Amino acid sequence: MTQDMTLLWGSGSPPCWRVMIALEEKDLQGCNQKLLSFEKYEHKSQEVLDINPRGQVPAFKHGDVIVNESYAACFYLESQFKSQGNQLIPDGPAEQAHVYQRMFEGLTFFEKLVAVVYYEWYIPEGERHDSALKRKREALATELKLWEGYLQKLGQGTFLAGPSFSLADVTVFPTVATAFRFGLPGERYPHLAEYYARLKERPSIKASWPPHWLENPKGQDTLKDI
Amino acid sequence: MTQDMTLLWGSGSPPCWRVMIALEEKDLQGCNQKLLSFEKYEHKSQEVLDINPRGQVPAFKHGDVIVNESYAACFYLESQFKSQGNQLIPDGPAEQAHVYQRMFEGLTFFEKLVAVVYYEWYIPEGERHDSALKRKREALATELKLWEGYLQKLGQGTFLAGPSFSLADVTVFPTVATAFRFGLPGERYPHLAEYYARLKERPSIKASWPPHWLENPKGQDTLKDI
Repeated sequence: MTQDMTLLWGSGSPPCWRVMIALEEKDLQGCNQKLLSFEKYEHKSQEVLDINPRGQVPAFKHGDVIVNESYAACFYLESQFKSQGNQLIPDGPAEQAHVYQRMFEGLTFFEKLVAVVYYEWYIPEGERHDSALKRKREALATELKLWEGYLQKLGQGTFLAGPSFSLADVTVFPTVATAFRFGLPGERYPHLAEYYARLKERPSIKASWPPHWLENPKGQDTLKDI
Repeated sequence: MTQDMTLLWGSGSPPCWRVMIALEEKDLQGCNQKLLSFEKYEHKSQEVLDINPRGQVPAFKHGDVIVNESYAACFYLESQFKSQGNQLIPDGPAEQAHVYQRMFEGLTFFEKLVAVVYYEWYIPEGERHDSALKRKREALATELKLWEGYLQKLGQGTFLAGPSFSLADVTVFPTVATAFRFGLPGERYPHLAEYYARLKERPSIKASWPPHWLENPKGQDTLKDI
């Protein structure tokens, strides 16, 4: 069932990581996974372009079915393997709504994080402004407080959308982990820190941990004052 | 069933429009809809904040269930009213994957459109650069060509993800319409223009057409050279 699945991915890319966690949660460990190097521009290689014309990873194929967008792949895997592995979308209307709501707020969280930690990567030198970066950092701090509040309200030991691990965690955990990788101070965001420390030990997440983070456990300190 | 549904929305907001089209397609016309004024900052009013702490529209509530993110609301409505109105997520795995894939690529399309047509709205005067706007316009042109190609490949009379209207159209049509509102030249994007002209006549879309576009049918010409 998994021999005809191919995932091309890059280490530390939250979108790739989402799909990898989903595969683990759905017991689809046999998928052919190929790690590509961003430094060598392998995400722009013909191998990727044949699956994803945007020249981006994840590039994901199941038989003849191509689903490259990470959220699309997560929905697809949950739908096609509903009764296999862990159920990632609950049945109850309120629980389901909660998962969807947090998943899509997660895209805003990711966007605001990327805007800060990759500011110099995305904005050419002549177009950078301290005022812009300051505004982006404030927007990220507001966003982080929102998520800290969500976890606080749910209480210790819960997940992003309630008592069960769900697609909200699959899609948003990589963003949380990236924030800590870039120096988010756990003492200022204790609920996010507890969530991060707990989820790190979850088998699906441990198995898909970015290899270059394992090799070099020290990240950056971009967010140390946020 | 719809008396306990409330939607707070703003005219011309693609995220609001997505939810309104979904409500129409699922035969949920009885939902309480309240039009708010962006100019009067009503999207920051207590009424909105009570449902959506982000102070954004759409703000959507069904009984005690709150789903404000437009994609979340679309998934929720399709799931809760699966057998009512039009089916918006097909059953076949390949067809479903196609809908998901285009829906999520649609977020990139929307982001690239907004970055150009609202450039001056989002970027303070002292931080604007011709080089940045030029790059954003090129990225949008590339994106538009991609969607033009998708429609060309599917052939006339089809929808964004195949022969049937789906959540891909619910979520991406408002982006296409906004591009034309801002002067996208149909002669350069004939398949997008045909799709736009055809979908404009679809009852769910006609019924939810932005009222201020009806009052003032002439838009802007920001995209006339794209």
